[in-house]
Amino acid sequence: MNDATLPALSRSDLLDRLADVAVETGVNIQEGQDLLIAADVSMIDLVRRITDRAYRRGAGLVTVMYDDEAVQLSRFRYGHDLSFDRDRPWLQDGIAKAMEDGKTARLKVIGADPNLLADQDHEKVARAEAAFAKASKTVIGKITRFETNWSIVAYATEAWAKVVFPGAPDAVDRLWNAIFAASRVDASVADPKEAWKAHNADLSARRKMLEGKQYSTLHFRGPGTDLKVGLADGHSWGGGAGKTIQGVLCNPNIPTEEVFTTPHCRRVDGYVRSTKPLAHQGVVIKDIEVRFEEGRIVEAKAGAGEAAFSKLIDVDEGARRLGEVALVPHSSPISASGTLFFNTLFDENAACHIALGQSYSKCMKNGGTATGEELGERGANTSMIHVDWMIGSGEIDIDGITRTGDAEPLMRAGEWVTPAR
Amino acid sequence: MNDATLPALSRSDLLDRLADVAVETGVNIQEGQDLLIAADVSMIDLVRRITDRAYRRGAGLVTVMYDDEAVQLSRFRYGHDLSFDRDRPWLQDGIAKAMEDGKTARLKVIGADPNLLADQDHEKVARAEAAFAKASKTVIGKITRFETNWSIVAYATEAWAKVVFPGAPDAVDRLWNAIFAASRVDASVADPKEAWKAHNADLSARRKMLEGKQYSTLHFRGPGTDLKVGLADGHSWGGGAGKTIQGVLCNPNIPTEEVFTTPHCRRVDGYVRSTKPLAHQGVVIKDIEVRFEEGRIVEAKAGAGEAAFSKLIDVDEGARRLGEVALVPHSSPISASGTLFFNTLFDENAACHIALGQSYSKCMKNGGTATGEELGERGANTSMIHVDWMIGSGEIDIDGITRTGDAEPLMRAGEWVTPAR
Repeated sequence: MNDATLPALSRSDLLDRLADVAVETGVNIQEGQDLLIAADVSMIDLVRRITDRAYRRGAGLVTVMYDDEAVQLSRFRYGHDLSFDRDRPWLQDGIAKAMEDGKTARLKVIGADPNLLADQDHEKVARAEAAFAKASKTVIGKITRFETNWSIVAYATEAWAKVVFPGAPDAVDRLWNAIFAASRVDASVADPKEAWKAHNADLSARRKMLEGKQYSTLHFRGPGTDLKVGLADGHSWGGGAGKTIQGVLCNPNIPTEEVFTTPHCRRVDGYVRSTKPLAHQGVVIKDIEVRFEEGRIVEAKAGAGEAAFSKLIDVDEGARRLGEVALVPHSSPISASGTLFFNTLFDENAACHIALGQSYSKCMKNGGTATGEELGERGANTSMIHVDWMIGSGEIDIDGITRTGDAEPLMRAGEWVTPAR
Repeated sequence: MNDATLPALSRSDLLDRLADVAVETGVNIQEGQDLLIAADVSMIDLVRRITDRAYRRGAGLVTVMYDDEAVQLSRFRYGHDLSFDRDRPWLQDGIAKAMEDGKTARLKVIGADPNLLADQDHEKVARAEAAFAKASKTVIGKITRFETNWSIVAYATEAWAKVVFPGAPDAVDRLWNAIFAASRVDASVADPKEAWKAHNADLSARRKMLEGKQYSTLHFRGPGTDLKVGLADGHSWGGGAGKTIQGVLCNPNIPTEEVFTTPHCRRVDGYVRSTKPLAHQGVVIKDIEVRFEEGRIVEAKAGAGEAAFSKLIDVDEGARRLGEVALVPHSSPISASGTLFFNTLFDENAACHIALGQSYSKCMKNGGTATGEELGERGANTSMIHVDWMIGSGEIDIDGITRTGDAEPLMRAGEWVTPAR
């Protein structure tokens, strides 16, 4: 399309498009199904559009759970010390109950201030995080097992924009432009929902190719990295749209560029260096360097935020092992933007990455019916956390090692060796 | 105090005072106790002050449940028809669980648009209300039985201010002034918490006088009204501060001017006319006229909102019977302001009133230990609703009828016949 013919879309038009994609492509709300929206109060103008669309599309009850960063900050500033070891199981258990049998879909709007808790006591932050992870274990389980349809979309808050584009007077506008582009709703896209269909088809083709290969191991090589990530026995690849247990197609991440699967939690060996900062619980963790032995992190350091990283991998035994490995070409639109978003939803779609902690049973064959014990024997990891961090770049090479030990080139200098379709 | 010596207090100072009174006099948050705040997103500047103060006073976890009137309106405009017969039991049950053993105190900030749902389908509004009442039955029970400390304070939203002071360019300022004055935090009060102590002592004295009398019946006479309200056997009078089952003193209503007790739900006879409009679920109901026989409403009409009133008394059998009767002098500060607030928290403190529906076990002797059946036999009403409406004015006379049938004058032309202390 020639620039001259591009439709002029206002911010309001673009927010409407994003709300449409969130409701239809993202959660794909079903007639009569309830919807739970989690968002910060600052995101209210998008939340209200999403609510309107969900109801117009036949949603049952839409429940908005507004967070308030100022309220969260009050807690860390003045809260009673004993309160940091507990959370709200009554609320998380309630949410889990709402989600039973896919009765309630879930949409999260992200865009929190990456530095919100940077000046707070890191030990309290880690304790609060562990308590939250414990309280929300059932909910997280339902989400990772796709017991209901869910999605995550982004909102350009002022606090986030200032971190991504420091000093820029138009930081919020620039972040919105990046979000609209990555979410395939900007003016260059004639029909966002059709664009998502084509993109999902590409990811599906890539996923099926890898699924057929059933590699034993992925071998990552690059600066500071020589890592062999064994894949779980009977692993399955995910990417793009996914189906819930009830058979509802949803896009859990808007945007998404990755294909991903389950590592074998006892067959990861070698060393790896992070290629982008990890914004976690309000702390920015940079230049992570870890060494794995038989799946377990045995050495770890970081150039910044090392204390927060140490706390993270100490949450439980599974926090030191991998639950996900994902491949993203370096030329993906988000990577090409050259922007560092300090947010996993975006940065993980700019680069290959690994995740510490809980694995997705969806990324295991028969993952929905096998017992947790069976999945564990096949190499699937268990933990209260699931935290992604980036290890890909334009300098990374990846081989797939077949079951007979042959190395097949998958990526060179961060790009797929073969096209998707 | 001379006007010249009055301190100048900014809006911010006054909001801080209101937050202090809400946390300390209102809920009286205990060390390590959790706090649940229910408020509209438009009330965020007061909510954040309350949260700060609660944490500084030693609260455990403060959880804010922000409502959003726009989201509510979306539901009534576009929601799936089947959804109006259900609510969120998973959330209400969770809140009830949080409140168990007084672990979580509750603060509600009111100030909703009284006309929010005026243009919506009244049948849907009534169905949604009944579903909400059903889902929140356990929570309401815990509140009425004082199983935890709780309070309600007010916020001058723009929508509410426009209804109270239509056409006034300074409507929000005027409503704030009225709220600050009625809540005893305005500049005329040197120490709000001390002022509340003195006010509670007055209400307590009035309460004890009535408690000692153990009247059989209250007889209301005025224009359009000749109503004999039998009082429950072993009724108890409430007013001002109340004690929870755990013994925590809290002020459930900020402001409050009333003393109240439990009518006998089978011994109310005669007719009564409302003296102020009732703003209920977004509908303003005016000039209610009902006739009671043996405790039950047998005839009902209203000058406006009659359909909504009919739905209300049809929610269940107890909705046609009284659960509360309250006495407020016509000279109370709120009544003296001459302002009609279209909000029960304020208007009920300007006039004597009755409430349809659920009774308070606190207003029955041994109410905390007696079974529901015992309380019912003694005359305490049961219902999913509890809705107050005003029957007092400067023209109402009230007699207390003793057990031997003697009439003792309590109020004449809306004023107490004897002083409080």
